[in-house]
Amino acid sequence: MSELKNDRFLKALLREPVDRTPVWMMRQAGRYLPEYRATRAKAGDFMSLCKNAELACEVTLQPLERYPLDAAILFSDILTIPDAMGLGLYFETGEGPRFKRTVRSAADVAALPSLNAEVDLDYVMRAVSTIRSALGGRVPLIGFSGSPWTLATYMVEGGSSKDFREAKRLMYAEPEVMHGLLSKLADAVTDYLNAQIRAGAQAVQIFDTWGGSLSSWAYEAFSLSYMKRIVDGLIREYEGRRVPVILFTKNGGQWLEQMADAGADALGLDWTTDIRAARARVGDRVALQGNMDPSMLYAPPARIREEVAYILERFGRGTGHIFNLGHGITPDVDPANAGAFIEAVVELSGQYHD
Amino acid sequence: MSELKNDRFLKALLREPVDRTPVWMMRQAGRYLPEYRATRAKAGDFMSLCKNAELACEVTLQPLERYPLDAAILFSDILTIPDAMGLGLYFETGEGPRFKRTVRSAADVAALPSLNAEVDLDYVMRAVSTIRSALGGRVPLIGFSGSPWTLATYMVEGGSSKDFREAKRLMYAEPEVMHGLLSKLADAVTDYLNAQIRAGAQAVQIFDTWGGSLSSWAYEAFSLSYMKRIVDGLIREYEGRRVPVILFTKNGGQWLEQMADAGADALGLDWTTDIRAARARVGDRVALQGNMDPSMLYAPPARIREEVAYILERFGRGTGHIFNLGHGITPDVDPANAGAFIEAVVELSGQYHD
Repeated sequence: MSELKNDRFLKALLREPVDRTPVWMMRQAGRYLPEYRATRAKAGDFMSLCKNAELACEVTLQPLERYPLDAAILFSDILTIPDAMGLGLYFETGEGPRFKRTVRSAADVAALPSLNAEVDLDYVMRAVSTIRSALGGRVPLIGFSGSPWTLATYMVEGGSSKDFREAKRLMYAEPEVMHGLLSKLADAVTDYLNAQIRAGAQAVQIFDTWGGSLSSWAYEAFSLSYMKRIVDGLIREYEGRRVPVILFTKNGGQWLEQMADAGADALGLDWTTDIRAARARVGDRVALQGNMDPSMLYAPPARIREEVAYILERFGRGTGHIFNLGHGITPDVDPANAGAFIEAVVELSGQYHD
Repeated sequence: MSELKNDRFLKALLREPVDRTPVWMMRQAGRYLPEYRATRAKAGDFMSLCKNAELACEVTLQPLERYPLDAAILFSDILTIPDAMGLGLYFETGEGPRFKRTVRSAADVAALPSLNAEVDLDYVMRAVSTIRSALGGRVPLIGFSGSPWTLATYMVEGGSSKDFREAKRLMYAEPEVMHGLLSKLADAVTDYLNAQIRAGAQAVQIFDTWGGSLSSWAYEAFSLSYMKRIVDGLIREYEGRRVPVILFTKNGGQWLEQMADAGADALGLDWTTDIRAARARVGDRVALQGNMDPSMLYAPPARIREEVAYILERFGRGTGHIFNLGHGITPDVDPANAGAFIEAVVELSGQYHD
């Protein structure tokens, strides 16, 4: 493996000193980039792009060609695990992801196969090693997975949902069935992320997109506890280096203290949380990643720069901040505005570090 | 006006002693009730139902016939104000509310007429006085409005939105235009709620459905500050009695301290906030309304009862709690489960009061 030339991202995750605040964007390889849309058109549908290691590598690297980003993130989908479990993932235009089969009973849970990620999700591992090799040590590569609760919502509902009616009915009415499902998923996610680490991922992020739909006690019991179990089972050092773990619960701003105790190195913040208040709450237990409103990228570059300055100032001096959006970049953003965002972090953040 | 026979709700809002915790449900007059669907079918479309005082009264009273509720809430829509401003509200099946015209520029804002709610929204005031009279003092009547920010999102987007792209673009790129719109809306909402109070509403609630989509500073500047202005302009005593005001920001759990300083008597909580933690944070400044997950109503009655017991215990002893769902009841709920919820509050809450 080539030597890592830019380790600002990994250092900030471990709260080690850096020269400036590192920056990357959730969903940075995505539809807002015309070159992404061109590669996607070559691949055919979305899952064909995920399953083709060369094309997945191509789109992963595209934003790095445009912007001075400090990390690359594996291009993949959060629903690869349930797909590998045989639920039949497909995408309907404008409808988001769907599954052909749902999981709504103890028998359904029992019927889910145990996965061996290196075999059953070999296309992901091929993508990871291809990207890692193509990066040549330029920046670190982030691997990722959906959280057990987030995966479970799609598996029970059979797709996206507004109010998670079926997932919550199962959770409230038959909690032991939901726990059985989450337990299987926690094992699968642990194995999946460890396989990504062995294939070349240098940090991993757990995306808990729907944990914020839960009441406080249910978040702890049905989402956070399983993420904690995953963190406990992850490879934490590889190739002689710590492999940092980031937990991101969208709309999880009320639970930062509990999240900070889960054993992860960093927490992702969405834009609704004030990062100064968040830093005061978590202290030196974890680094913080975030948290500009992705919709700020619809504003002119000068306004975007102002907001970057504001968030840097709110976090304040010292390491432990990884700049990011509070959620994924949206498809209609002008790539020039994404550039203005990243440039602003690069130019304005040095003054907060020694 | 008939004497009020059940003032438990009004007393709890003012943190005066009560014999048990009062209870009502957001959207309690709604599609989950077969008798509602029958009246709605008579009226034709949704807005025709809102505009017919007798039928609006009929559906408002329906849940009171089934359940021992402690308050009635005016049956109406949150978008009556922009409709009266001439934007042309209509509903498309499965699509939610839409406007024929949008508001996206200083000229659009300038063209919006000032309203006189008693004239321009006379159908709402007729509904309020009809319901108040039909209630005959059985329980108090709640009036309501959408918050300025929430109304503005629909007016700028032209309907519902996932990421509020246009509303946020306007807010970030042309804040003075957004402030102009919000200022007009704050005046209109103040006049609208005062007209409802004069027509017979005995408490009012401001629904800030989309305030939780904002970053912390933007929530204060673009949503909370306008709700505060409304609260400052409301009639606070009428017919010799205090008219309590409830602020409800969905996903606003991170900002309870600021909300508690806005001058309202009570805060509505969605289900993501732990009510014990919320009570500790707001102290004796405001009462708290909430906060069971509406999806709990898909669970069996015994499980619903357990959750009611849990929330009562989390709030603890004493007045200042109005039991409610954390958001509106959903259309697919079995009315028997709604009944189990309300019965549980009635039966289990007395032990927390002297």
